[in-house]
Amino acid sequence: MQSYPVPPGYARMGAAALPRLLADLPGVPERLGGGPDRWSAGEISDGNMNAVFRVRGPAGSVVVKQALPYIRSIGESWPFPVSRATFEHRAMIEHGTHAPGQLPELIGWREDLALIVMEDLSEHVVLRHALVAGRRFPRLAQDLGRYLARTLVLTSDHAMTTSRKTRLVEAFAGNAVLCQTTQDVVFTGPYWNAPLNRLTPGQEALAAEFRSDGALKAAATEMKHIFRSRAEALIHGDLHTGSVMVRRGDTRVIDPEWAFMGPMAFDIGALIGNLLLAHASQPGHAGERTDHAEWILETAAGLWAAFAREFRTLARPDADGTLIPEVAGDGTADAFIDARLRDIFAETLGFAGAKMIRRILGISHVEDFEMIADVPTRAACEAVALRTARRLLLERRSLTSMAEVTALARAMSAGE
Amino acid sequence: MQSYPVPPGYARMGAAALPRLLADLPGVPERLGGGPDRWSAGEISDGNMNAVFRVRGPAGSVVVKQALPYIRSIGESWPFPVSRATFEHRAMIEHGTHAPGQLPELIGWREDLALIVMEDLSEHVVLRHALVAGRRFPRLAQDLGRYLARTLVLTSDHAMTTSRKTRLVEAFAGNAVLCQTTQDVVFTGPYWNAPLNRLTPGQEALAAEFRSDGALKAAATEMKHIFRSRAEALIHGDLHTGSVMVRRGDTRVIDPEWAFMGPMAFDIGALIGNLLLAHASQPGHAGERTDHAEWILETAAGLWAAFAREFRTLARPDADGTLIPEVAGDGTADAFIDARLRDIFAETLGFAGAKMIRRILGISHVEDFEMIADVPTRAACEAVALRTARRLLLERRSLTSMAEVTALARAMSAGE
Repeated sequence: MQSYPVPPGYARMGAAALPRLLADLPGVPERLGGGPDRWSAGEISDGNMNAVFRVRGPAGSVVVKQALPYIRSIGESWPFPVSRATFEHRAMIEHGTHAPGQLPELIGWREDLALIVMEDLSEHVVLRHALVAGRRFPRLAQDLGRYLARTLVLTSDHAMTTSRKTRLVEAFAGNAVLCQTTQDVVFTGPYWNAPLNRLTPGQEALAAEFRSDGALKAAATEMKHIFRSRAEALIHGDLHTGSVMVRRGDTRVIDPEWAFMGPMAFDIGALIGNLLLAHASQPGHAGERTDHAEWILETAAGLWAAFAREFRTLARPDADGTLIPEVAGDGTADAFIDARLRDIFAETLGFAGAKMIRRILGISHVEDFEMIADVPTRAACEAVALRTARRLLLERRSLTSMAEVTALARAMSAGE
Repeated sequence: MQSYPVPPGYARMGAAALPRLLADLPGVPERLGGGPDRWSAGEISDGNMNAVFRVRGPAGSVVVKQALPYIRSIGESWPFPVSRATFEHRAMIEHGTHAPGQLPELIGWREDLALIVMEDLSEHVVLRHALVAGRRFPRLAQDLGRYLARTLVLTSDHAMTTSRKTRLVEAFAGNAVLCQTTQDVVFTGPYWNAPLNRLTPGQEALAAEFRSDGALKAAATEMKHIFRSRAEALIHGDLHTGSVMVRRGDTRVIDPEWAFMGPMAFDIGALIGNLLLAHASQPGHAGERTDHAEWILETAAGLWAAFAREFRTLARPDADGTLIPEVAGDGTADAFIDARLRDIFAETLGFAGAKMIRRILGISHVEDFEMIADVPTRAACEAVALRTARRLLLERRSLTSMAEVTALARAMSAGE
């Protein structure tokens, strides 16, 4: 397998070496308080990709994330470029400018070590865990809709001159290995017997059906083509519910290492698709889940509504001549924005469907289903999600509102 | 107005200085024969943009094209980057690889002077002149369809790995000033009273109607957004009938200085739109033009048919995993290619409409109409083209075949 160069001086950091390193990083000692001899560091790696540490001092704590030259959860057999930390760092700066308060604060950066120091969100929980646990967050839909609209519109042609946008295209073009990986694991692998795919026992028949469904595979290929060829906005690139940290009244988005100039709908669809996975999984979890399942659907609908509302404001004609000048009352801007939202909505449903399928038929599964111990129940919940996802992909242009989408999800869960 | 840097050593070349310059360019002396004292050079600038010369020697001739730091036809009041010659040179190499024999041969290159030496197509004529003159070329549709399919598909995700395509994106990102100019003069300027717009007397009412038509302006803005945000393929970027040179049995495409990674349909739509302009102009030219007008429509339809036929072959699944692996007989590839062609066709009609409107309501007019001396006749022919264009833009998704498009053009010409 291909390996990728690391910067000169790159070395994998262990917890023990971190205090000495952080002592020399501007901004960090003040945050921790005291001196490095009073700081303690421990590994808290949780996601698939990187080494993550928490470092505590007398005055506070920080999180340290280091990209490894391979995928942590798989090992050295899957080399992966550490340059992804550079793109994550750039995306945190760019997105942080547009959506202040919705990312962890960036505290320190060592490009040679592919190492980012950021705010410790120790009072937040990962949204996916919270959804499995049955917790609700009233502001979640509004916060995520706002985050999506601001990070996406403000890095797109709706708000940027061609020369500024071109600089963003150039700044993120180098993240091509991660784009290629997304293409493989999201859009290709799930649709054939790729070696690292995994199936819940009992899912074999539906998997075989999907893998010989030419119309479905053509739709997934269309979404792959859109993913590859639309340089619309600086997207997060992996915006599932494991990339969102929440506590009451506060929502943060983490881990934009997959960022590149891609289609807006990929981020929106990732969130909506993962909420629909959470919805389909609810009957498998302990306790009365009817209200919680309904709240998840309301959140998906509310997220789109909040995005669309902010989009209407942010994507108006501006001084750069981004849009055709409107003659008072001729309706150009409204008609254009309506058309854009229609296109983004259809693509959002397509990406949501693709992201749902890949979490059940592909390499990387989600804890929404994995935490369901009873295998036949798990397979049944997954099957509901798969059938919903297929319809989203195939009917993405005829479904025209989130009300229809949530009605579809409800009907599929009810076995209709 | 902003000006743009020129390379160190850049100087505008006059005809007299060319023989000495070319004597030192590898490949050129052999082509001309004898020595520079036996070579004669003369300026033949014809297009809007650059200085162009022909240099003759005892054994043959070459064409020399130098980019000036402004737009030649307007003057120093409109500065324009000479780096466009670098992008033209790169595009000639890339497109020439994919469509051998369909571009002029590249003979020499001086990046410091923004100067390209190429094959002299002295037996060819500019297609636009030929259409005005009533000349026909039986292979034209097939040649242009093949050129489009090969240059577009083979530089797109259909045939390139992500890393190769990313290198093309980077190589052409710097051509942003020209992209911005296209946005301004094609998609924005025609729809308001931009200072350099020009109208044929008698066109004022229709111009005012178009400029307060919110639905039309929204459609043009959608096309502008597609132009800006689709990094599909290395497109020519200015593929009108003045960028095509023809003689019986041979078709060449010149002047790709506007090249960048954009939507395939922009090139296809430019050609079809300019053929429809030629069609609408026929009643204004001398002689019996009914058959010629019909041949132009057949050429437009044949061009699309040839493109679609080659697209079906070139865009098949390939070894790079560009498409989802097809299980024998499940129809994935055909369904995907059908969907792609439907999208490209709709966008082609949108771009064709936009390119037609901009040649009548914008800054840059075409000789198809300018050569009609009788002003009311010219205005009437233009009005047919404008009304056809508006319908292409507004009905681009409901018109589903070139037969419908040519029927529309015929009906509009007949005053229906």
